[in-house]
Amino acid sequence: MKIGIYGYGNLGRGVECAVCHAADAELVGIFTRRDPSTVKPHGDVPVYAASELPSFRDKLDVLILCGGSATDLPEMTPMLAAEFNVVDSFDTHAAIPAHFAAVDKAATDSEHIALISAGWDPGLFSINRLYASAILPDGKDYTFWGRGVSQGHSDAIRRIEGVRDARQYTVPVPEALASVRGGEQPELTTRQKHTRECYVVAEDGADLARIEHEIKTMPNYFADYDTRVTFVTEEELLRDHTGMPHGGSVIRSGVTGWNAENRHVIEYSLKLDSNPEFTASVLVACARAVYRMRSRGIVGCKTIFDVAPADLSPLSPEELRARML
Amino acid sequence: MKIGIYGYGNLGRGVECAVCHAADAELVGIFTRRDPSTVKPHGDVPVYAASELPSFRDKLDVLILCGGSATDLPEMTPMLAAEFNVVDSFDTHAAIPAHFAAVDKAATDSEHIALISAGWDPGLFSINRLYASAILPDGKDYTFWGRGVSQGHSDAIRRIEGVRDARQYTVPVPEALASVRGGEQPELTTRQKHTRECYVVAEDGADLARIEHEIKTMPNYFADYDTRVTFVTEEELLRDHTGMPHGGSVIRSGVTGWNAENRHVIEYSLKLDSNPEFTASVLVACARAVYRMRSRGIVGCKTIFDVAPADLSPLSPEELRARML
Repeated sequence: MKIGIYGYGNLGRGVECAVCHAADAELVGIFTRRDPSTVKPHGDVPVYAASELPSFRDKLDVLILCGGSATDLPEMTPMLAAEFNVVDSFDTHAAIPAHFAAVDKAATDSEHIALISAGWDPGLFSINRLYASAILPDGKDYTFWGRGVSQGHSDAIRRIEGVRDARQYTVPVPEALASVRGGEQPELTTRQKHTRECYVVAEDGADLARIEHEIKTMPNYFADYDTRVTFVTEEELLRDHTGMPHGGSVIRSGVTGWNAENRHVIEYSLKLDSNPEFTASVLVACARAVYRMRSRGIVGCKTIFDVAPADLSPLSPEELRARML
Repeated sequence: MKIGIYGYGNLGRGVECAVCHAADAELVGIFTRRDPSTVKPHGDVPVYAASELPSFRDKLDVLILCGGSATDLPEMTPMLAAEFNVVDSFDTHAAIPAHFAAVDKAATDSEHIALISAGWDPGLFSINRLYASAILPDGKDYTFWGRGVSQGHSDAIRRIEGVRDARQYTVPVPEALASVRGGEQPELTTRQKHTRECYVVAEDGADLARIEHEIKTMPNYFADYDTRVTFVTEEELLRDHTGMPHGGSVIRSGVTGWNAENRHVIEYSLKLDSNPEFTASVLVACARAVYRMRSRGIVGCKTIFDVAPADLSPLSPEELRARML
């Protein structure tokens, strides 16, 4: 399958690497809205201006969209789904139905497939919520994130006056995790599920007490959590906090039996050294499914919920049954 | 959907309970090769002789087969797939390709769907092996079972002279689990992955040392493992070991990055109080998928690899996207 990448940030770089490691994929090019001469791919792959895309209509099987969910993808995915089979990682959970509707119209009218919201949450975590709830209808779902870096929370700290740089880790509360894993089905508040650890580089002479107070009282981002603020030097931040690890767990605790007497716990968990590279690996597997589904005549907007697992694997159905079932 | 159950052992009883808890399913009847008057269902459901099945051809959407993999299902599934849409839990991994071929012919010729090898392994563990390997092609898979009761190993002990009853637990080795979860990708022998705990009730006056020796040296079942034998009274066995708990973990440890520098660990784990009731819950979700796929004109033998996750859930695609994605 012939793959294009649209957008070359952290995610686009991860997709480049994942496509080059997929035996059944060929990377045709990287497309950018910047000046192509300023984009330096890791490998030997051409970079084109986004405006050149129309001439690639017959040269790409799937275009993987690596824009952001806030402003890029709501416009980008419907627009490009009118010309290409696409995969995106749209992750604003509440806006998924509206995004789906816009993309579905564009893809259906033009007879393409667009697979939206691929990645790990939404994505792998979502299918595990679905599988677990379909199997244990009498139960309760929990999603824990971390320990991992939240870009949004790190950015929020950086916008505070006197902050030069910052990194925020989301951390599940061990007691909450243990209770859920034990099948206790606790009711948990926001504060009881996660804590927030902040590593902050302040400007010289900044008022550290004020910065710490502004972080801990910031609505939506920190006010509802137990937050720990640690001031570090720029050297310490670069030395200890440049990675982009993440992960988490989806847990469903449920019961079966005529008297609900048997408890079951299903847990799916990820420990990721690189959030963007892992997300990129999911996007490439989804591109394979899009390519195969389109070759069977399927069109419209899809999510990972609509993808039979076999379509994600490079192995044949016979190999899968013999080796993995 | 109208469901029938074929066979009423532990698994059939679990299916009865799971169907009665599914809002979109109606249990039409239990079919047995025994004298129907000797079968006492938990609920208010008719029991029929298996020979009456032909008159139910238009009254059942899916027949769930609750026979054993050793001798029942290899004959039962192809035979019944010629008359009904069926789901089975065939779990002899090495024989799956042959079983698939036989069932596929019967189901395709008669225009039914037969979903084979549903449950948790094969089943949920299998799809997690598939998803994880499709996403992290450069990696290594591990499956650990337990702590849980193995019926096959318990039966093997019971066949030893002087043994009145026995229960065998398969237990993962904690150090092996920790190493795999840490992303170390160890090479593990059979002995390094699992230990076996046996609780044995001996006949009065039996030679306990001989029984223990026969267990520990039994080829295939115990000789390759570190095995612990504990003799207990019949009362202790009934008090402490009548449940059918099981579970385990599927773990894939893999790397991404141009220099394989980023490690990722994907883990799917189950802790089940009742192995048969949980397996039954998977079968009922699969019956829902079979019913929907058949209504779209799909026929032939399928596995869980061929089922889009959305087809397992009673929720609509819109509800799934809004609530679970």
